[in-house]
Amino acid sequence: MKRLGILTSGGDCPGVNAVIRGAVLGGDVAHGYEFVGFRDGWRGVLEQDAIPLPRTGVRGISRLGGTILGTSRTNPLVGNGIEGVRACFRRNGLEGLIAIGGEGTLAAARELCAQGINVVGVPKTIDNDLGATDYTFGFDTAVQTATEAIDRLRTTGESHHRCMVAEVMGRNAGWIALHSGMASGAHAILIPEHPVSLDQVCSWVLSARDRGRAPLVVVAEAFAPEGHAAPYAPRGLDTFGRPRLGGIGLLLEGELQIRTGIETRATVLGHIQRGGEPTAFDRVLATRLGLAAVESAAAGRWGTMVSLRGTDIVNVGLEEALGELKVVPEARYQEAAVLFG
Amino acid sequence: MKRLGILTSGGDCPGVNAVIRGAVLGGDVAHGYEFVGFRDGWRGVLEQDAIPLPRTGVRGISRLGGTILGTSRTNPLVGNGIEGVRACFRRNGLEGLIAIGGEGTLAAARELCAQGINVVGVPKTIDNDLGATDYTFGFDTAVQTATEAIDRLRTTGESHHRCMVAEVMGRNAGWIALHSGMASGAHAILIPEHPVSLDQVCSWVLSARDRGRAPLVVVAEAFAPEGHAAPYAPRGLDTFGRPRLGGIGLLLEGELQIRTGIETRATVLGHIQRGGEPTAFDRVLATRLGLAAVESAAAGRWGTMVSLRGTDIVNVGLEEALGELKVVPEARYQEAAVLFG
Amino acid sequence: MKRLGILTSGGDCPGVNAVIRGAVLGGDVAHGYEFVGFRDGWRGVLEQDAIPLPRTGVRGISRLGGTILGTSRTNPLVGNGIEGVRACFRRNGLEGLIAIGGEGTLAAARELCAQGINVVGVPKTIDNDLGATDYTFGFDTAVQTATEAIDRLRTTGESHHRCMVAEVMGRNAGWIALHSGMASGAHAILIPEHPVSLDQVCSWVLSARDRGRAPLVVVAEAFAPEGHAAPYAPRGLDTFGRPRLGGIGLLLEGELQIRTGIETRATVLGHIQRGGEPTAFDRVLATRLGLAAVESAAAGRWGTMVSLRGTDIVNVGLEEALGELKVVPEARYQEAAVLFG
Amino acid sequence: MKRLGILTSGGDCPGVNAVIRGAVLGGDVAHGYEFVGFRDGWRGVLEQDAIPLPRTGVRGISRLGGTILGTSRTNPLVGNGIEGVRACFRRNGLEGLIAIGGEGTLAAARELCAQGINVVGVPKTIDNDLGATDYTFGFDTAVQTATEAIDRLRTTGESHHRCMVAEVMGRNAGWIALHSGMASGAHAILIPEHPVSLDQVCSWVLSARDRGRAPLVVVAEAFAPEGHAAPYAPRGLDTFGRPRLGGIGLLLEGELQIRTGIETRATVLGHIQRGGEPTAFDRVLATRLGLAAVESAAAGRWGTMVSLRGTDIVNVGLEEALGELKVVPEARYQEAAVLFG
Repeated sequence: MKRLGILTSGGDCPGVNAVIRGAVLGGDVAHGYEFVGFRDGWRGVLEQDAIPLPRTGVRGISRLGGTILGTSRTNPLVGNGIEGVRACFRRNGLEGLIAIGGEGTLAAARELCAQGINVVGVPKTIDNDLGATDYTFGFDTAVQTATEAIDRLRTTGESHHRCMVAEVMGRNAGWIALHSGMASGAHAILIPEHPVSLDQVCSWVLSARDRGRAPLVVVAEAFAPEGHAAPYAPRGLDTFGRPRLGGIGLLLEGELQIRTGIETRATVLGHIQRGGEPTAFDRVLATRLGLAAVESAAAGRWGTMVSLRGTDIVNVGLEEALGELKVVPEARYQEAAVLFG
Repeated sequence: MKRLGILTSGGDCPGVNAVIRGAVLGGDVAHGYEFVGFRDGWRGVLEQDAIPLPRTGVRGISRLGGTILGTSRTNPLVGNGIEGVRACFRRNGLEGLIAIGGEGTLAAARELCAQGINVVGVPKTIDNDLGATDYTFGFDTAVQTATEAIDRLRTTGESHHRCMVAEVMGRNAGWIALHSGMASGAHAILIPEHPVSLDQVCSWVLSARDRGRAPLVVVAEAFAPEGHAAPYAPRGLDTFGRPRLGGIGLLLEGELQIRTGIETRATVLGHIQRGGEPTAFDRVLATRLGLAAVESAAAGRWGTMVSLRGTDIVNVGLEEALGELKVVPEARYQEAAVLFG
Repeated sequence: MKRLGILTSGGDCPGVNAVIRGAVLGGDVAHGYEFVGFRDGWRGVLEQDAIPLPRTGVRGISRLGGTILGTSRTNPLVGNGIEGVRACFRRNGLEGLIAIGGEGTLAAARELCAQGINVVGVPKTIDNDLGATDYTFGFDTAVQTATEAIDRLRTTGESHHRCMVAEVMGRNAGWIALHSGMASGAHAILIPEHPVSLDQVCSWVLSARDRGRAPLVVVAEAFAPEGHAAPYAPRGLDTFGRPRLGGIGLLLEGELQIRTGIETRATVLGHIQRGGEPTAFDRVLATRLGLAAVESAAAGRWGTMVSLRGTDIVNVGLEEALGELKVVPEARYQEAAVLFG
Repeated sequence: MKRLGILTSGGDCPGVNAVIRGAVLGGDVAHGYEFVGFRDGWRGVLEQDAIPLPRTGVRGISRLGGTILGTSRTNPLVGNGIEGVRACFRRNGLEGLIAIGGEGTLAAARELCAQGINVVGVPKTIDNDLGATDYTFGFDTAVQTATEAIDRLRTTGESHHRCMVAEVMGRNAGWIALHSGMASGAHAILIPEHPVSLDQVCSWVLSARDRGRAPLVVVAEAFAPEGHAAPYAPRGLDTFGRPRLGGIGLLLEGELQIRTGIETRATVLGHIQRGGEPTAFDRVLATRLGLAAVESAAAGRWGTMVSLRGTDIVNVGLEEALGELKVVPEARYQEAAVLFG
């Protein structure tokens, strides 16, 4: 019996389970593969923490958020990791490994392939900032969840004649802000790719107010106003274990209120964007990526990842895929900015 | 033509528009009333900022969040307010006023009635902490929105073996935390009515972890751990206009992580709980309250508010209704706490 | 170890799993009960098809639609059923049984209790037509699902200037039609408790059209127009195994179009109303009913069912509960009808 | 002032209002266009039933289902239509027309352009069967709505061990069935592009049952089993104005039950798929198409339609776009079919 391993690594992302199901069913039906699931990403590989994944093990999971395999941020390239991966392949009789993860996981996969270990990658990030694929699964769900939340904020802004600020995810790229801002009719969308000054933001806010609207600002967590040295302290613990000052959303709450005189309220949407049930779009995309990953393995296309191009799922070399971060092109920002005015 | 005024005051709350529509249609069809809407609560009354509200003006609004009349926190009892209200009644030829608002609005309504001004109240708060009514409209929507968000947080907790903390609204009472925590299967629900120590919270968290679960904590914004002097600084601006340190959610993120060693993430659900489309439950309740408010006016039951008792809408004297805050009874907390263990 | 059995019987209803979880956790934590689940309702009791239900068996199920135990329409009173139930009690060492079901199940429970067999009932029907309880769990979800669907139909009606007809469930009572019709702003709500003529329906439809609206009609499946002998043939198979003519929704589609000249489209919402994830309201209600059922068992209150009264869960004798069907009172219909005009 | 006309034609489709808003804001801000909206599609053009569409007229509409302009199935090519369109252009001083519609509308646009009348098309169909574009807006919402409904049906199937059949829209192509079936984990997806016999369907159903699943069948309304002469009578009125026998969903309900012995229930999802609030995906796509349509007009690219290719919006000649219906390719069906087994 031919065997493949499968693991999920990095941050949570709606659709991971649909990838797993697609791979296991596709491998079973079309190729007679048997599957081994590793728990908590590369940790499970290195520590031989594996579970069998028969088709009954993936029943009904395509609509479930999270990952039935668990995840971690373990890096297999540290220390003796590569030897550990080899040992795991030997002990489990693996022909190859399907690695579902973000940039770090795919970079590890590339290195492992360079060392002769068979890996196929499935790109995974709600941020949609991986190159060589039109969209990553999880992104559509994040945008939908953010949009529904912003729709709710909007009515409160209008009732109180307030400016509402919604901080969405996006550590390196503003895709979630761009799409959820466009979908919710924001009067300003702020993304790291296109720094603008606080004066500019105030001008958009005042202009919306003057047209009788309750101003709505959607900001990516990584945005920093022009002229500010760095992104505002990301949330987390300071050296004393106390919560740090809030991020850009809360800063805007203060600054916009002071500068425009308009009562302003910020909401940090946070983790609700990366969990829960995937949209139908993401379930279909993720299922197709899982099916394609196992086809890639069966065809020996190691060192590639599966990727969406138009309506097709294709293979892209990991070298190409990891070339550079996919940020929002200026033209896409300008297209959206037409709607601010 | 008999005329009634209508206003909406205080914080945003899903269902306000359904109350307005219920009152206007009910008044028109059953009693031939004409309606005047005041903009932004008592401000519109004092400043004579009024719009006619014909039945065509309330078309299709019962499913819309927010309030078509706008809202504010203006208090009509300050300064010459009472004379201003009287002047507004005279100028608009009002028989009475339907005031949709929270505790402050209802207290003002009581005082105005004591001064001979005809007001009927409709209780409004997502916090569900007004007495003399089984539920307030808006509460069901807040709980549903919070529950959907917490469902999303849950899958991320499980994928990462993290403890997730969700901070929900509730300035004086823990109703939203109690219901959304019970609905989402929380391992700890923390409400101001029932202070517990951080040690107790850690014990629940560790116990859930030891049973193989990703611990889930739902906390009301007003909760303070036993032995702590005061609620953690509510979010807002400090005296320099800078955002303050986060509330109890972020504090728990830090404390639980340090004390239990379990990676912990907090999300402050914030304003998404008080805006947006009302649930069907709230649309029905709010419509019935609007219909009943106009019946109360027609019957001259001034000085009362409309209220849900079982499945009936009844009138309650404002005196009784404002007697005391409706907090979560200890028995309800203990009922929920059975599920923590 | 004290043991209780649990079964779920009759039609699907959102919230059943939350009842099961509430009972199992409550029984375990507060009373040290062990639980046996019977598969497919009374069939599992009679055929001794049982599974152990430890607390790990009910993890995370409160948000899942359906029932993990399965259901059937087996009647335990037929043939040697009562002896079979006794045998099952003996073999499994049961102190009593928690029966989650509709009218049939509760009637069986009453008879079994009369024969000395210990049963506590939990009323279950999306139709909300069981007496002695303010609401049954599942009803809120059915109304919410129907309302969301009708909101979608509405925009199509408005775009095309059509009359839209939505047929909702309700075999004996019009509760779902009443609430979803009120929530969605229907121009006519048709329920079996209040027969009206087709002429009256046409008059409401034309009146809405004349006010510039796209008429919206919400009809309960059991409604029959005045002067018609019987409810229109319920959907199903005829004696040749062919699908029968559609129900009242399709009849109205034809009749309204012919009589008013307005293009009309009917949609039969069907089974989407009785499946899927329960609303937060239903999860809370169902969890509380499950907790209360096990308290009732522990206190020996056999022959009762648990019931919602206002915000309290109480016990009601099955005799009283089964007295008569809870239909929509005329006053509630008239309250809603104010909004048609 | 340069002026453009805009109309919406054909069946309802979520996202139409977002197209209108995108066009009006984009035209106003970037090009100084003034807009005239025609009511009810080509009827408004021919009957000069026009309303001004200033930017205040499109406020907040991108999330609303339906079309603020209304729609109809009027064909402008009939009779003196072309002269009527010319007259309308003259009287309103139009530089060109943005026509948002399906195949019929785009074919009319092509003919009008051939006659020297300036039209830009925006393809619109929930069925996703228009060529020369990766997706049409409205499709994602239809798939999401169908998937949520099928998720609900599924739990009922599992509770009762029934086979559930969901009939979805798709008059010529099976796209909605393919995507919603894949997203919901169907055991059989039946589309007109790939006729299979009832025996094959029964075999899939029995196989699912034998693996312990409740069989789930998703069928496009236009599917006909192999060997059957024609699609089953589409729902509608017969020559006597009575509702016709149900469509393929109901036929399968009968046939599958008789042939497999498994209790089977069909639900015809119907119009809920084509109305209501668009998903974020559709709002973004529709907004971008609206912006691009006005750019196309400004650039004089008459006789084209705007279209999605990968992540880009491009122009495609109407000739090419109308070449042939975009049906589900066999490879996409086979990809999905792997999951049936």
